[in-house]
Amino acid sequence: MRNIKIILEYDGTNYHGWQSQNNAISIQDVVTRSVFELTGENCEIIGCSRTDKGVHALGHVANFYTNSKIPGDKFANALNTKLPDDIVVKGSEEVASDFHARFNAKGKKYRYIFYNNYFASALLRNRTYHIPKKLDVDNMREAAQLFVGTHDFAAFMASGSSVKSTVRTIYSTSVSKVDDTIIFEIEGNGFLYNMVRIMAGTLSEIGYGKIDGSQILELIQNRNRKLLGKTAPPQGLYLVEVFY
Amino acid sequence: MRNIKIILEYDGTNYHGWQSQNNAISIQDVVTRSVFELTGENCEIIGCSRTDKGVHALGHVANFYTNSKIPGDKFANALNTKLPDDIVVKGSEEVASDFHARFNAKGKKYRYIFYNNYFASALLRNRTYHIPKKLDVDNMREAAQLFVGTHDFAAFMASGSSVKSTVRTIYSTSVSKVDDTIIFEIEGNGFLYNMVRIMAGTLSEIGYGKIDGSQILELIQNRNRKLLGKTAPPQGLYLVEVFY
Repeated sequence: MRNIKIILEYDGTNYHGWQSQNNAISIQDVVTRSVFELTGENCEIIGCSRTDKGVHALGHVANFYTNSKIPGDKFANALNTKLPDDIVVKGSEEVASDFHARFNAKGKKYRYIFYNNYFASALLRNRTYHIPKKLDVDNMREAAQLFVGTHDFAAFMASGSSVKSTVRTIYSTSVSKVDDTIIFEIEGNGFLYNMVRIMAGTLSEIGYGKIDGSQILELIQNRNRKLLGKTAPPQGLYLVEVFY
Repeated sequence: MRNIKIILEYDGTNYHGWQSQNNAISIQDVVTRSVFELTGENCEIIGCSRTDKGVHALGHVANFYTNSKIPGDKFANALNTKLPDDIVVKGSEEVASDFHARFNAKGKKYRYIFYNNYFASALLRNRTYHIPKKLDVDNMREAAQLFVGTHDFAAFMASGSSVKSTVRTIYSTSVSKVDDTIIFEIEGNGFLYNMVRIMAGTLSEIGYGKIDGSQILELIQNRNRKLLGKTAPPQGLYLVEVFY
């Protein structure tokens, strides 16, 4: 069988996240159905990551095995004819049989977008996290810089998660302001469950002065979720790119 | 009675334009209902412009007369508690009794956004006009500059419209590229029906070489709609600001 890698952009607003589940439609379900409509095969679509309900992706990577004769690079256009317009395949290729979208991922880049205006935005309501209080972008940027490096990010994990290790390496972060949006970007070798959203929530509270940003390293070392900010809502989060 | 001016941002995706009509929900209907819920009065909401189905606004201006005692600047927050989240009042104030959102408008600024990538965008699908062919931004910018000035824009009007004069003055235009989007902005003293969308459609055809951009002045002078590009679709258009 051939192994096909696809890169997906999706608007997570109308889906219950990536992962298939009972009684709710997921992005994985819709992609599975589109592959079935195209090939007649009920393939398992292996995703790089389980994004939550409402989270978006600009470059979610998945792979599946098929007996179809369609050339690897033609799957993108072919699948797009079967997909709704809030899920788009932006690229496809045939890859080695041992390529696995999740296990082979060496790193990921996420973006979190705040909308910082006293009034909410009608146009960006499902794309950003609205914070009416004025945010100090410089304080947020300086704090985000302190995430860089190899740390035990246990405090930045949703309760109830279980993983072997909570140590992760963050390669880079940035915080920039574009009109009324503030864009936090982060690249690392891996992320714990809800880690970016807890970071974003913490940065927002640093932005309006509730948390002291210079204390980030102590907050990491304390391993205490309760000292951090709230988990920021899903609609501000984007999986931008996956590195292999 | 007091005259209240409001400034609205809205996502036009789910509405049949600004203007009330039978058998379809308009933005005007929803604003009228929110004012009724707040004041108990069935006010006529006077809009600055009739945006089409799917067209968005960042700064649509409207006014209405009320006996309510609510201070002018408090209407924004009060109406937002009654409005769905795809319509937001971003400002309100009491104005002179003779202020009329449409008749007093001295000029308007519009934005039209193209998404220029071979693949469509899931996230920007209701916010931009997807053009897969590569667009030449410099050619588009130079052509858009030729709109500036006072011209008879009869060719840039949807057929079936009737107005006293088709002469309008364009103050400025710009065309810029941000990632995969190309943003056309235009300010003028007034716009004919579908004028910005016909300009946008024409600029896109200039961008991929179907129309010669250096001929814009001749195309204006010819007054022949058929020599221009297609009317670009509504979801790329934004009413940005109204000048009084």
